[in-house]
Amino acid sequence: METNIDLQKINSPADIRNMDENELKSLAAALRRPLLDKLSAHGGHVGPNLGMIEAIIALHYVFNTPDDKIVFDVSHQTYPHKMITGRMAAFTDPNHYDDVTGYTNPRESEYDLFSLGHTSSAIALASGIAKARDLRGGKENVVAVIGDGSLSGGVAFEGLDYGATLGTNFIVVVNDNDMSIAENHGGIYADLRLLRNTNGTADNNLFRAMGYAYRYVHYGNDIPSLIKMFRSVKDIDHPVVVHINTMKGMGLPVAEAHKERFHYSAPFDLKTGASLSSPAAATEPEDYADIFANHLLMRMKERPELVAITAGTPGSIGFGPGRRKEAGRQFVDVGIAEQQAVAMASGLAKGGARPVVGIVSTFLQRAYDQFSQDIALNRQPATFVVFYGSMFGMNDETHLGFFDLGLLSNIPDLLVLTPTCKEEFLAMLRWSEDQTKQPVVIRVPGGEVRSDSSIKITDDYSQPDYEIVREGSRVALIGVGTFLPTMKEAAELLSTNGLDPMVINPREVSQLDKTTLDQLRNFDVIVTAEDGIIDGGYGQKVASYFGDAKVKVINLGLPKQFRNRYNAAELQHECNLTPEQIAELVQKALK
Amino acid sequence: METNIDLQKINSPADIRNMDENELKSLAAALRRPLLDKLSAHGGHVGPNLGMIEAIIALHYVFNTPDDKIVFDVSHQTYPHKMITGRMAAFTDPNHYDDVTGYTNPRESEYDLFSLGHTSSAIALASGIAKARDLRGGKENVVAVIGDGSLSGGVAFEGLDYGATLGTNFIVVVNDNDMSIAENHGGIYADLRLLRNTNGTADNNLFRAMGYAYRYVHYGNDIPSLIKMFRSVKDIDHPVVVHINTMKGMGLPVAEAHKERFHYSAPFDLKTGASLSSPAAATEPEDYADIFANHLLMRMKERPELVAITAGTPGSIGFGPGRRKEAGRQFVDVGIAEQQAVAMASGLAKGGARPVVGIVSTFLQRAYDQFSQDIALNRQPATFVVFYGSMFGMNDETHLGFFDLGLLSNIPDLLVLTPTCKEEFLAMLRWSEDQTKQPVVIRVPGGEVRSDSSIKITDDYSQPDYEIVREGSRVALIGVGTFLPTMKEAAELLSTNGLDPMVINPREVSQLDKTTLDQLRNFDVIVTAEDGIIDGGYGQKVASYFGDAKVKVINLGLPKQFRNRYNAAELQHECNLTPEQIAELVQKALK
Repeated sequence: METNIDLQKINSPADIRNMDENELKSLAAALRRPLLDKLSAHGGHVGPNLGMIEAIIALHYVFNTPDDKIVFDVSHQTYPHKMITGRMAAFTDPNHYDDVTGYTNPRESEYDLFSLGHTSSAIALASGIAKARDLRGGKENVVAVIGDGSLSGGVAFEGLDYGATLGTNFIVVVNDNDMSIAENHGGIYADLRLLRNTNGTADNNLFRAMGYAYRYVHYGNDIPSLIKMFRSVKDIDHPVVVHINTMKGMGLPVAEAHKERFHYSAPFDLKTGASLSSPAAATEPEDYADIFANHLLMRMKERPELVAITAGTPGSIGFGPGRRKEAGRQFVDVGIAEQQAVAMASGLAKGGARPVVGIVSTFLQRAYDQFSQDIALNRQPATFVVFYGSMFGMNDETHLGFFDLGLLSNIPDLLVLTPTCKEEFLAMLRWSEDQTKQPVVIRVPGGEVRSDSSIKITDDYSQPDYEIVREGSRVALIGVGTFLPTMKEAAELLSTNGLDPMVINPREVSQLDKTTLDQLRNFDVIVTAEDGIIDGGYGQKVASYFGDAKVKVINLGLPKQFRNRYNAAELQHECNLTPEQIAELVQKALK
Repeated sequence: METNIDLQKINSPADIRNMDENELKSLAAALRRPLLDKLSAHGGHVGPNLGMIEAIIALHYVFNTPDDKIVFDVSHQTYPHKMITGRMAAFTDPNHYDDVTGYTNPRESEYDLFSLGHTSSAIALASGIAKARDLRGGKENVVAVIGDGSLSGGVAFEGLDYGATLGTNFIVVVNDNDMSIAENHGGIYADLRLLRNTNGTADNNLFRAMGYAYRYVHYGNDIPSLIKMFRSVKDIDHPVVVHINTMKGMGLPVAEAHKERFHYSAPFDLKTGASLSSPAAATEPEDYADIFANHLLMRMKERPELVAITAGTPGSIGFGPGRRKEAGRQFVDVGIAEQQAVAMASGLAKGGARPVVGIVSTFLQRAYDQFSQDIALNRQPATFVVFYGSMFGMNDETHLGFFDLGLLSNIPDLLVLTPTCKEEFLAMLRWSEDQTKQPVVIRVPGGEVRSDSSIKITDDYSQPDYEIVREGSRVALIGVGTFLPTMKEAAELLSTNGLDPMVINPREVSQLDKTTLDQLRNFDVIVTAEDGIIDGGYGQKVASYFGDAKVKVINLGLPKQFRNRYNAAELQHECNLTPEQIAELVQKALK
């Protein structure tokens, strides 16, 4: 029954629209093979893409893209979409694997409407496209495709709520694979399960309650069923939710069986699923997520009121399934709902518990208002540990770790600590868990875990108190977090040139230690280096403080720019952030 | 039937718990009288408080506060709560009207759990309190009280979604008066209406779909009905929503009839509802909201693709009911849903429409992620007009306008313009509406509307291009937005002392005009003044730029602090932001 499909002849959805249903099934099989090869050799979002091959074929088959508009939420599921919209070689030819990004990207194709990588926004974005269409009297279909896991994010609900009032064509495809990155958490998931179990007929229906017509496709990986359904809603004149039941990881047994492990994966063995990351994979280097989780598990046993919180990314903070089980009710996954995670932490602290929220830099910005109002203004003693807040972390333009430092350190009454090594990280974490006076953010250093037993630990991090790591004169090098070791190296280089630079670990970026800074007033040069954009960051506070002084202040960090798939070493060099460049800048400034 | 109640004897909820139902009804009447007097004489949130007197009495009567915990969403409805929790004099004695804030405040009372003024967070906060209780094995009731209008905010949904999974006592009281600040917008409101019309029996039930048990009280201003219901859910062992149907503005005919006008009101005549703000009230001074709305209405007629957007605060941006009607489908109120407003604007721009979002400074921070990801990263040409981003705006600690400037200007590819007068504001707005290259934020100046026909208008605001308002030497005074006139005055003062300061209008805060700044490299002093906190703001960028130069840079603005009900003139003085102080600082720096 399988027809032979020549993938190289598929340059756009027009090339699949004349196929019959058997050919489309063969197309799905034909797409799956190179996709599996690329995923296993190159890494990427495994489960979401494998589960959506059929639905994406059916969408492009039925809807007249690119005139009809499809917005893919978070775009974790768009590799098959890229394959049939003119980018096949990036999936079939290993030499071209990196020609495309892992997310939709309008610079790649007119079929990609937005550069997207944060969840839950597709319905809101699509509602704007639909409204623009209505204003100009257009007739094209507007489709938002969103996963069940993404539905827990507040903006998804705001989009659903508004979208229901459009009164015109608006199609929300809910891709329900019964999983977020990890398992789902939230009251709506019981309803989705009920709908799946009743073939969509249950009275209790979230989508109808929000004002949508509702359709259900039980075999969401069956192309004929999908085509029939999409045809039935094409050109519909009112908002409708099409709920499709799909299999995450479809067609790869290890991914079907281990959905969390294979949401995203680095290169792996296609048969066993084993990681291929390095021959020494058995002894992977220690990472801060493990250090964090192990520390918390240990302390949870002593302190029943200690509770760890994640917003849908337990793996990123070291809490895989085993550790979650061990933590029991002292671990809370609120689902992809950062605002809930941060506001709930405020409530927990108010109620006498000791909340520790582990959160990824690029996602914490979704809860800025809660950091400001619920946490800082109310001075609730919650602890926030920020992962990947670094140029040495994730490097997709949608997932940059450049912005959290300035964002959080400019909120009043929020202490932002910047440890430089494992020992300091743990000391700050322990201190913050034990104190009950204020909210604290601890920013995990970037790059590999560094151990430094010479670091000076204190028993109170609440007051600005810079550590002078190396005494010196004329030149002061202030290295924030990740960049303390860099500054120490730069100092060594300068000392071989007859200079004697002071090196400072500021420990925090939210308050200035004026006592220490005032010692530098008659220095010649101060250099600050931070792991984030310069604008709004730490260094500019130092420059402002010394605005009326003679000492030269040089602020190093990243320019205020989005970057996509950058090379960290190149970026570091571009920003004058290597020890050699810093030493050179100092020499030049002294002239 | 009415019993005489001596309000002065009510010092805590304990004093009402021995009353019978007739006495409680009399209490409601007795509370309403001074509340009306205070509201009409002093101003405040009229409708929300009048509608909740009975429910708040019943809550404190049934629940054992403060051991049982009640979190009031946005706390617009907490005046009656304050009256019966030890703060009666602040409502009965005009000399003490200002003893309390308009919001819950833990510094006032142990019955107030949080300082709250942004909507939609109560369920999330309460879920943390409930979880903390569960971790320590407590048994107290945890109650969140939230209005129907606040339900459209994403964090309300995130809280509902998580709260449903607590599996223990968790009571969400939905105070449904069929109104947001203005009318409600969103699909959920059709469901709330259906529930009201079916006495809570409809199958289509948002709250059940989200995993809650559900109860309905049709007479939400009837104390016996409320008491009966609250008793029935007290000590419940699972999450429940109690939906109460209340009358906004209850007991004040003009407020019952004009719910939007009387959501919040400045002092007014109790009988007629007429504003008492000033004898010349008939000729109120022009404000930027009117200027904005009138301009947009005019342009909408020429441009059918122009669309104005608000997130539930149409009045704050000049769109009262009449202008909304006039704008027709070119005006969109998405409900209290800032993330939706900003993401939808991205979709509108992508779809070829010209969106203009009017948004209040303190609320825009709820959509930071959408500004960064959906707008800036995608470079969608939407326009955002920020109201009350100023120290001369709202002065409650929950509603400060100090933070938006740094927040937005540190996002890459987002142009933040800072007009200084009406003419410049309109020129920038017109330019932004017409250009299709980039997202633009325009920050309305603070204080009274200023007209300045000498301002230099340009036909392109995309590139940094500072206006030199006054040529000069040695001293440069850079006045951002609100503070340009202040800098001009300071220059006049200095010029009488033989100095010749340059005065600069930077026009924007997101990029530096290095060509102009480089002219100042050999000046003696540069002063920057901005209407927001110094940390992360504009001035620090200038200080950093001149870090290696001899010129002294003095950054003026506000300290990084929350302030509550401050006096703007005093704060201005405290921050050295008067012309006299600036002149003095310059003289000192020159010595």
